[in-house]
Amino acid sequence: MNNAVSRMVGCEFPLFAFSHCRDVVVAVSKAGGFGVLGAAAFSPEEFERELAWIDEHIDGAPYGVDVLVPETVDPRVLALSTNAARAAAISPEHKAFTSNLLNSYGVPPVGEDMGVPEGAGITPEIGLALMEVAFRHPIRMIANALGIAPASMIEEAHKRGIPVGALVGAKEHALRQAAAGVDIIVAQGGEAGGHCGEVATIVLVPEVVRALKSAGYETPVLAAGGIMTGSQMAGMMAMGAQGAWCGSVWLATTEAETSETFRDKMVAARSRDTVRSKARTGKPARQLKTGWHEAWEGPDSPGTLPMPLMGLVSEPSFRQIEKAAAGGNQGARDLVSYFVGQGVGLVEQVRSARAVVQEFREEFAEAAGNLVAMIGD
Amino acid sequence: MNNAVSRMVGCEFPLFAFSHCRDVVVAVSKAGGFGVLGAAAFSPEEFERELAWIDEHIDGAPYGVDVLVPETVDPRVLALSTNAARAAAISPEHKAFTSNLLNSYGVPPVGEDMGVPEGAGITPEIGLALMEVAFRHPIRMIANALGIAPASMIEEAHKRGIPVGALVGAKEHALRQAAAGVDIIVAQGGEAGGHCGEVATIVLVPEVVRALKSAGYETPVLAAGGIMTGSQMAGMMAMGAQGAWCGSVWLATTEAETSETFRDKMVAARSRDTVRSKARTGKPARQLKTGWHEAWEGPDSPGTLPMPLMGLVSEPSFRQIEKAAAGGNQGARDLVSYFVGQGVGLVEQVRSARAVVQEFREEFAEAAGNLVAMIGD
Repeated sequence: MNNAVSRMVGCEFPLFAFSHCRDVVVAVSKAGGFGVLGAAAFSPEEFERELAWIDEHIDGAPYGVDVLVPETVDPRVLALSTNAARAAAISPEHKAFTSNLLNSYGVPPVGEDMGVPEGAGITPEIGLALMEVAFRHPIRMIANALGIAPASMIEEAHKRGIPVGALVGAKEHALRQAAAGVDIIVAQGGEAGGHCGEVATIVLVPEVVRALKSAGYETPVLAAGGIMTGSQMAGMMAMGAQGAWCGSVWLATTEAETSETFRDKMVAARSRDTVRSKARTGKPARQLKTGWHEAWEGPDSPGTLPMPLMGLVSEPSFRQIEKAAAGGNQGARDLVSYFVGQGVGLVEQVRSARAVVQEFREEFAEAAGNLVAMIGD
Repeated sequence: MNNAVSRMVGCEFPLFAFSHCRDVVVAVSKAGGFGVLGAAAFSPEEFERELAWIDEHIDGAPYGVDVLVPETVDPRVLALSTNAARAAAISPEHKAFTSNLLNSYGVPPVGEDMGVPEGAGITPEIGLALMEVAFRHPIRMIANALGIAPASMIEEAHKRGIPVGALVGAKEHALRQAAAGVDIIVAQGGEAGGHCGEVATIVLVPEVVRALKSAGYETPVLAAGGIMTGSQMAGMMAMGAQGAWCGSVWLATTEAETSETFRDKMVAARSRDTVRSKARTGKPARQLKTGWHEAWEGPDSPGTLPMPLMGLVSEPSFRQIEKAAAGGNQGARDLVSYFVGQGVGLVEQVRSARAVVQEFREEFAEAAGNLVAMIGD
């Protein structure tokens, strides 16, 4: 498919696969799509190892990275520059609430130090360190998902001829990104997994496309949020998108980093089983709804914490939860959750990432053909 | 366009226009779409007059009606069978809160009897009376928007060869409707104006299409929620819908029942300016967000009331608000609101309903053409 986005990043079929799993990135890019490795879960050293592995296995196919450099940081955490200082700043009330919550589901507590190593977490300094790692590899796109990309990211990328992408949830943000020099806008609707706004994909995408055009930008737009099939991708491209950016669909692949427990829960889940909640990262992010969210948003909650403190509470807890669930603990299984969009209701089985790309391509062609046939009548 | 839905209702182009305004219904049907008159705002006598007017002006083009027969009624209001009894059941606290709210924006208060005539409101008995009126006219579809249509509606309609439609916000509801004998499912996403669920249109429509097919039903599905353009309609049809059901787009037409104040606010509004709230009808409905919703959902609110009590509070208040706004009261203008979806962010001007249909047809053809051209590359 010879459109602007495909040309910019060098892929055949503009299906972008956002994944924290290198195997998914490699499988998608080799199948003609475009894999994007999410950096947020890695330390810079780990990220370097992942990218080196990708370079070795991807057979020269194009791929990209997504780093999280938060544009705004809550003033309550600005002064806390190490994870030790951040962990120490979590109140005894929040720690006790977490322990009691885990305990009420039969999950062993997290240690007093919250088990978080230095050099990891969603902070501006770690985001920038991850970015520097990325630039040492032959990436074909670098994206930022939490506000305007820092000027240094845009400058460095452009110096190397790498397009910069940015995720937005509102048209005003798209205009700010385009003004800052971003090359590809990912318009992500409120049905998406992970950090998202409130406007639905089918409204946001045409709104962003129109706003960019009116302001004189030629920046192409990828549609994100709720897309799990090639016919949805075709539909969003009929509405003006140049491609699709998908995250949740890869979580139910055989290659994914997700646990078997979570993949089973994805297959069973309905579209109504997700929630947009601050209870995992501190910013609103859509995820599979479990007792974790009910508790943190319930009447007895001490309140969620700002990013990155909330992650220092939730991530060690979810590691404990997953471990206990894998050991057969049913209470832990109930709590298992991860970032996933409403499209989870369309997941019926776990497949390989390659098979997903292939099916997208077939469904896309079929949907376009059906539409034309309908007009013909 | 010769698809199942167009054949069922006898229209050329499967763009369904839900409107409370007879002029919109007539203009859309005459332009090749399918107008559907919403009955909820009328008494049975008024509804009879509206339908007679439509029959006289529509030149034999097909049209339908939408009545609201709530499937479930809150137990708190089951025993209250007249509007006088219902108005009397509204607590002094709720009345005082309403008066204070209006007063703080400089809007004159509503009288003690709430100004609601008998024989109007969203109740099962009025819904059934409106249905009987509809069957005396040459309607080509009857739809119900609040749960399973009563058996009498389905029986009567089928006896007369009239397809029955039903609005649903979840796939389980679609399956229940199909099992009850409903002929056309309107899958309405959470971005829609008016009563809606939480699942977004691009997830809900494929989910409903797939669920019906898996269960062996051939019931066609219309996509609703957020659709304001022909390219969105084409996109949703690429995803498996057989047509589009739109409401909000007609509110910004010259024929609409909306006030000039509200139409101006629609043009100015962004997609983020709506809210899904119980503060107008008592059930979650999306509408333009104003101080009314902030107050009823704020910390000092006595809480919203169940349907139809909430409407007895809100409708007389909004009549006062509109009157004051039309008289130049800025505070009243700020409060003006109506049911509208997130697609309001795509409204740039007020046009005639006929022009809207024409533009949908052109955009539809263009979108389909673009999609095919993209594959060709």
